[in-house]
Amino acid sequence: MDQKSVIYIGMVGFGNIGQGIYKLLEKNRNLIEAKIGAHLQIKKILVKEISKTRELMIPPSLFANNYEELIADPEIDIILEVMGGLHPAREFLLEAMSNGKHIVTANKAVLAMFWEEIIETARKHKVDIYFEASVCGGIPVIQAINDGLAANNILSIWGIVNGTTNFILEKMTNEKKNFKEVLTIAQKRGLAEPDPTLDINGADAAHKLAILSSLAFSKRVKPSEIYIEGIEKITLQDIETAKEEFGRVVKLLAIARVEDEELEVRVHPTLIPEDHLLASVGGEYNGVVVEGDVVGSTMYYGLGAGQKPTASAVMSDLIFLARSISDNVAGEVSNCWFITDNPQIRKIRKIEEINSRYYLRFTVVDQPGVLSAIARILGEHQISISSVIQKERKKGDKVPVIITTYGALEKNVQEALKKINGLPFVREETLLIRMDRGE
Amino acid sequence: MDQKSVIYIGMVGFGNIGQGIYKLLEKNRNLIEAKIGAHLQIKKILVKEISKTRELMIPPSLFANNYEELIADPEIDIILEVMGGLHPAREFLLEAMSNGKHIVTANKAVLAMFWEEIIETARKHKVDIYFEASVCGGIPVIQAINDGLAANNILSIWGIVNGTTNFILEKMTNEKKNFKEVLTIAQKRGLAEPDPTLDINGADAAHKLAILSSLAFSKRVKPSEIYIEGIEKITLQDIETAKEEFGRVVKLLAIARVEDEELEVRVHPTLIPEDHLLASVGGEYNGVVVEGDVVGSTMYYGLGAGQKPTASAVMSDLIFLARSISDNVAGEVSNCWFITDNPQIRKIRKIEEINSRYYLRFTVVDQPGVLSAIARILGEHQISISSVIQKERKKGDKVPVIITTYGALEKNVQEALKKINGLPFVREETLLIRMDRGE
Repeated sequence: MDQKSVIYIGMVGFGNIGQGIYKLLEKNRNLIEAKIGAHLQIKKILVKEISKTRELMIPPSLFANNYEELIADPEIDIILEVMGGLHPAREFLLEAMSNGKHIVTANKAVLAMFWEEIIETARKHKVDIYFEASVCGGIPVIQAINDGLAANNILSIWGIVNGTTNFILEKMTNEKKNFKEVLTIAQKRGLAEPDPTLDINGADAAHKLAILSSLAFSKRVKPSEIYIEGIEKITLQDIETAKEEFGRVVKLLAIARVEDEELEVRVHPTLIPEDHLLASVGGEYNGVVVEGDVVGSTMYYGLGAGQKPTASAVMSDLIFLARSISDNVAGEVSNCWFITDNPQIRKIRKIEEINSRYYLRFTVVDQPGVLSAIARILGEHQISISSVIQKERKKGDKVPVIITTYGALEKNVQEALKKINGLPFVREETLLIRMDRGE
Repeated sequence: MDQKSVIYIGMVGFGNIGQGIYKLLEKNRNLIEAKIGAHLQIKKILVKEISKTRELMIPPSLFANNYEELIADPEIDIILEVMGGLHPAREFLLEAMSNGKHIVTANKAVLAMFWEEIIETARKHKVDIYFEASVCGGIPVIQAINDGLAANNILSIWGIVNGTTNFILEKMTNEKKNFKEVLTIAQKRGLAEPDPTLDINGADAAHKLAILSSLAFSKRVKPSEIYIEGIEKITLQDIETAKEEFGRVVKLLAIARVEDEELEVRVHPTLIPEDHLLASVGGEYNGVVVEGDVVGSTMYYGLGAGQKPTASAVMSDLIFLARSISDNVAGEVSNCWFITDNPQIRKIRKIEEINSRYYLRFTVVDQPGVLSAIARILGEHQISISSVIQKERKKGDKVPVIITTYGALEKNVQEALKKINGLPFVREETLLIRMDRGE
């Protein structure tokens, strides 16, 4: 067959990310087209409101407000979905693939929720689907897992995959401010949404971990199967104690690891040693450590969100796909992520079944016998104490007691805390932070 | 066309790396073949001595001692070259491609030296060539540059790409030992060769930088065009002064950066801030920062050498290539690295033309007027001093004077040092360490 000389894209959505992709194609067109060996053209852009005033000067004829205009156009080979959200993104993707269009998407939510359906539809219709931008923005970590580490059984993933919470935790640490103050700063800078819930509570990180895990372990992981815990309970005092007493920093980690043919998938604040590579991942940056049985530990770092990094990842997918289309091989190559039935993972572990070390902050009345009561209950639940810190009381009758443990079963810790929280001298619910990295 | 059910490899060389690949294929065969969608079989292994006793139990029928046995075998689709060295590796690769065989190689020297010829031959005969293992072992940094960051004009590469020197510098720092002591330890551990020259003097890093730069900047960079300087002159005292006085650590960096359409390519010890991400790259690990005009800074980290990490990279190439062969599309897709005529880079800068900050250690007689004489010569060469450190003399009449500078032209610095080194009170050649990262 002849090579195609122009590859046409139908773009769905034209918000911040969509406009970034448009600008990038204009800016680096020569480079991009030289790598494809063909012209790359955005032929139609689906928007809600065609007449809306936009920052970019776009020929009005590019806009469409009916998806059928994109799907029915036989010249369009690629549907580029950057609208986000679950619906109608899911329906749009499925319809496009059923009509033989290849896909590039940056939509983590739709992939995390409808993984099997989307992958199955791509396979059935022999179309390619790429989604590097859906996880960690500009960092090519999906490609690393799918191709660069393809010969490895992946043992674990440890990642800072949410820039908003990483910014907040770092700023709390460096400027000794509390959570709410820093959240307000992040919102003013546009680093946190007006409603920051999905970032703060770990749900956004869980979507990304669902995609990374489904790929890395060849085993479908649903967001609902991932344990999540946010950063909102972490106080400045915990951050300072962890740093001064234990040389550790608090990071919101997305963790997936295999042990005894069981997969742990969880997102929670984690205390890691301050000389650990992930401790150097500051500000809005993301960093992901991927450990393979052959390669050992590898790490990928960069900006995990924002217009330009996301456009960089989307465009790299477009280049790869457009080159395949131009050379008439798109849809011909079987993709690694089509494997979802890894027999070596028998089940997904519940959080109660994990084993970790723990940082526990008890808030108690400053009176004799308190420490021994707590220690006794911990001991009765097979939890060994590695250190105890009780500082002099400054005000009121409440005093924090920090206890760190050796490795223990989470179920035992939860049960012990339930008992301890019910004791008369305990004034607040005990705070638990896992510290299961770098031992 | 039908899919192939078995992909046959002809392997050239069976040393440490070759045996690692063989073992990896045995260990993870199910995973690897599931990803390819076909069987992967090593059909022939070219060795010098068939009857040699080997650790691995290999059927003797696999061994060949005549390259023609591999080339003439129509079933062999892939020549896997892990013999290393320039000759006959070059001739073997060219002959294989001329005979329509696809290539996977881990040989950095042959690629760095014969880049145009090898790439041109692959293009001419429409075969694929992959070489992820040639740079930074298990880290998929070539793939990141070629695909993940494909939409970017690469602005710079800053890398720790030689594990031996990184191990030595770190051990000097942590254990306060001098260069020669640590080199002996590294040799005992097998981390440095009996003749460590090519690691120590930066030549190995230059080979890797030649490959990375040729890809990243779409511009052929020859090893001979790269300025190299080794770590042998760095003393424990420099390491300690840099850390205590300036909060910096010494790393042997491979640097490529574009400025005003000119490309700098150099390998030399560099003082970087201790909170910089590359400062956390310890032991034999490698780390490469790649900066793109759209994505910003990204970083890739992992083990840069050794049997297992190298086998991981080679096998990932084999999986990708074998999948393409199985699906009958190998050789059909144009590869990014075939572009070598980037018009945006006019020339490669000589070291004299770069601009950097400098750490200068003068070894002088402790007498009045010395500092002012040095300062005057620096000033006459447009070199501004940012700090001066002269500690009390401990023994003898020699005393070190450390001066750091603001940004200056290397040519001016070289000329000033020539004059200063000729002064009667200067007792040793002045040591220069560049500190042009993280400002």
